[in-house]
Amino acid sequence: MARNNAFYAQSGGVSAVINASACGVLETARQHSGEIGKVYAGRNGIIGALTEDLIDTSLESEASIAALKHTPGAAFGSCRYKLKSAHEQGAQYQRLIEVFRAHDIGFFFYNGGGDSQDTAYKVSQIGPELDYPIVGIGIPKTVDNDLPITDCSPGFGSIAKYLATSLREAAFDLTAMSRTSTKVFVMEVMGRHAGWTTAACALAAEQQGDAPHVLLLPEVAFNEERFLAKVEGVLGRYGHCVVAVSEGVKRPDGEFLSASSREDAFGHAQLGGVAPVITNLITARLGCKGHWAVPDYLQRSARHIASKTDVEQAYAVGRAAVEFAVAGRNAVMPAIRRLSDAPYRWDIVEAPLSEVANQEKLLPTEFISADGFGVTEAARRYLGPLIVGEAYPPYKDGLPDYVKLQNAAAPKKLTTEFAV
Amino acid sequence: MARNNAFYAQSGGVSAVINASACGVLETARQHSGEIGKVYAGRNGIIGALTEDLIDTSLESEASIAALKHTPGAAFGSCRYKLKSAHEQGAQYQRLIEVFRAHDIGFFFYNGGGDSQDTAYKVSQIGPELDYPIVGIGIPKTVDNDLPITDCSPGFGSIAKYLATSLREAAFDLTAMSRTSTKVFVMEVMGRHAGWTTAACALAAEQQGDAPHVLLLPEVAFNEERFLAKVEGVLGRYGHCVVAVSEGVKRPDGEFLSASSREDAFGHAQLGGVAPVITNLITARLGCKGHWAVPDYLQRSARHIASKTDVEQAYAVGRAAVEFAVAGRNAVMPAIRRLSDAPYRWDIVEAPLSEVANQEKLLPTEFISADGFGVTEAARRYLGPLIVGEAYPPYKDGLPDYVKLQNAAAPKKLTTEFAV
Repeated sequence: MARNNAFYAQSGGVSAVINASACGVLETARQHSGEIGKVYAGRNGIIGALTEDLIDTSLESEASIAALKHTPGAAFGSCRYKLKSAHEQGAQYQRLIEVFRAHDIGFFFYNGGGDSQDTAYKVSQIGPELDYPIVGIGIPKTVDNDLPITDCSPGFGSIAKYLATSLREAAFDLTAMSRTSTKVFVMEVMGRHAGWTTAACALAAEQQGDAPHVLLLPEVAFNEERFLAKVEGVLGRYGHCVVAVSEGVKRPDGEFLSASSREDAFGHAQLGGVAPVITNLITARLGCKGHWAVPDYLQRSARHIASKTDVEQAYAVGRAAVEFAVAGRNAVMPAIRRLSDAPYRWDIVEAPLSEVANQEKLLPTEFISADGFGVTEAARRYLGPLIVGEAYPPYKDGLPDYVKLQNAAAPKKLTTEFAV
Repeated sequence: MARNNAFYAQSGGVSAVINASACGVLETARQHSGEIGKVYAGRNGIIGALTEDLIDTSLESEASIAALKHTPGAAFGSCRYKLKSAHEQGAQYQRLIEVFRAHDIGFFFYNGGGDSQDTAYKVSQIGPELDYPIVGIGIPKTVDNDLPITDCSPGFGSIAKYLATSLREAAFDLTAMSRTSTKVFVMEVMGRHAGWTTAACALAAEQQGDAPHVLLLPEVAFNEERFLAKVEGVLGRYGHCVVAVSEGVKRPDGEFLSASSREDAFGHAQLGGVAPVITNLITARLGCKGHWAVPDYLQRSARHIASKTDVEQAYAVGRAAVEFAVAGRNAVMPAIRRLSDAPYRWDIVEAPLSEVANQEKLLPTEFISADGFGVTEAARRYLGPLIVGEAYPPYKDGLPDYVKLQNAAAPKKLTTEFAV
């Protein structure tokens, strides 16, 4: 029997468009029914493979699969799951192959960030050792935009559009109120190491003086006095100040600002939240009222304001992954290549997984303004096209009509269990 | 010279659609040029009248006025400004009339919540005493939905749509991750006294088990043990739990949960944020990972996801205010009257300002579920129609294209100053 079934799994933090990649994989696989049999999805990511909890996607209707393109979250469940030791890792890959062998799986598609590309790479190389030929293809996904080689990562354009839109709107609010009330607004942005998401907030500004006035990037060490002087200058010039702060901003000693020890009303240590820390600092030192927002999950699941460009790229990398596989490619990841900024043109190329895995692409120095509190024109040229276009979901009773799949389990074939 | 000019001002916290009411006022006034001359807008609300800082709206183009219908914030500036004493209040109303007399203003339109309706009422009654006949009309606006008589308040439908949409999306995220990572998500909602906004989150759920699983309403005293038992039950049944909490939730002793004393990294007292308090409580007592979001200003300025119903109602109350004025009415506020739930039908009626001013409409008991952690079917029937319909703004370069008016000042005619 040909090992022509496929396995697809979603990994790590979700995005507004990872399901668009799933849609690209599943629709393209169905078009290649001669080369690819069933596509099994891992329930809750790679855990589904390890526990032989496979979802039979052939049972989902074409309409449901198509609806993935406008549905946020991770339709098959995702996971944060890391190997604990080299020994366990070996056992884990053996287990993966055991499950794949039982279900005649010859294609492994893994949709995630840097860690996931590493896993995809290891699977792609394991064939000879375990005497089980398997094709391993990575599919890029991360709102952090920190994958190398690819010009951008699907998921990023939509979080960028959400953040810039939200910040522009909140700035209209602040500006209207600042005469007698709040003068400072601080918005906290996801992205612990790379500042792409925080940089994207700068797109909210159309002209000099528009919000955001100050960015606090994780690539730039936080200097309290320089920051306060900057805010004071903005307040003097415009009467109000909007700050976008990365959750990953660090003090000069390398400690996260958000990790400071605080206790709440119940005497428990307070979880993160760098926005209140920054707001309190401004209020205490500059004596003006501040508001702060922490959108948290809202920002990475806001499919209602997704970037059309991002949705198209997410679908395209899913489709290309299958096309690479049926063309006999292995150990590659579809990457987005930028052909021009204006008009924005892009295509899909092959990136070797060996060069993608475990690399983290930070905001380059030439994208950060001289004072460290903003971005350059080069950054705006890069970021601008990624948020263009709207891709509204359908609505029902005033709310986005997102699909929930049946996610029926494929019958188990193994008698062994595997603890995760 | 006829006193046929009009004054319009925006008051208090802004909304996604208060400018749609401004659009209704200005477009309708232009259609009644025989009865109404110029419309002057107060820069930063009533402060603009007191300081004779009047914006000449006749200088704005028709296109700019039309664009107000899709622009959040308060186009002329708003304020939080309260009188400090009966004596100062008297001087203030005399000053208002002094400015109105200087600019031949015979119509006073005041767009805001309960306090603003009180001000509109006082202006409407002051004519005989100060020998200056003036028409005072209130225009309802509040995201809190706490104005009496009117079935709902413009601004509420849009914040409700934003909150229910955002919570549904975040729940897709949480559900996908909950196998190995975060199991609890807590979203904090504006509305210090009335629970309408928090109740609206319930619309995110389509069927039993859908998020939100727990609402913490300001009308229900917070009981720590009952709350934890509820969350534990939800976690046991569904594996994850979504909580929507009002910023105004109080302990049984009447103290705000968010007002608890905390210190941040800089040793400063920490500003509000009840979501982290609730999340930390769950983490500490139930031992599972939680995430929390505080959308703050994002929720009341999210014009990109405004309710079409709300936009239409906001415009309609602005238009009706002018129509009431030219029909010779005084001391009234256009109110929305619900004619039927399904199909949803409404019209505009007159509410006497004397009955609107300083009243606060809380969530009625029959809208709160028996256990206090949810809403009833009656609440859903009331809330449902208010979020229906999309009214997308135009986009430019991937971002909503909102208008900024010229806001040119009308020449001053008085030589006196007034300190605010």
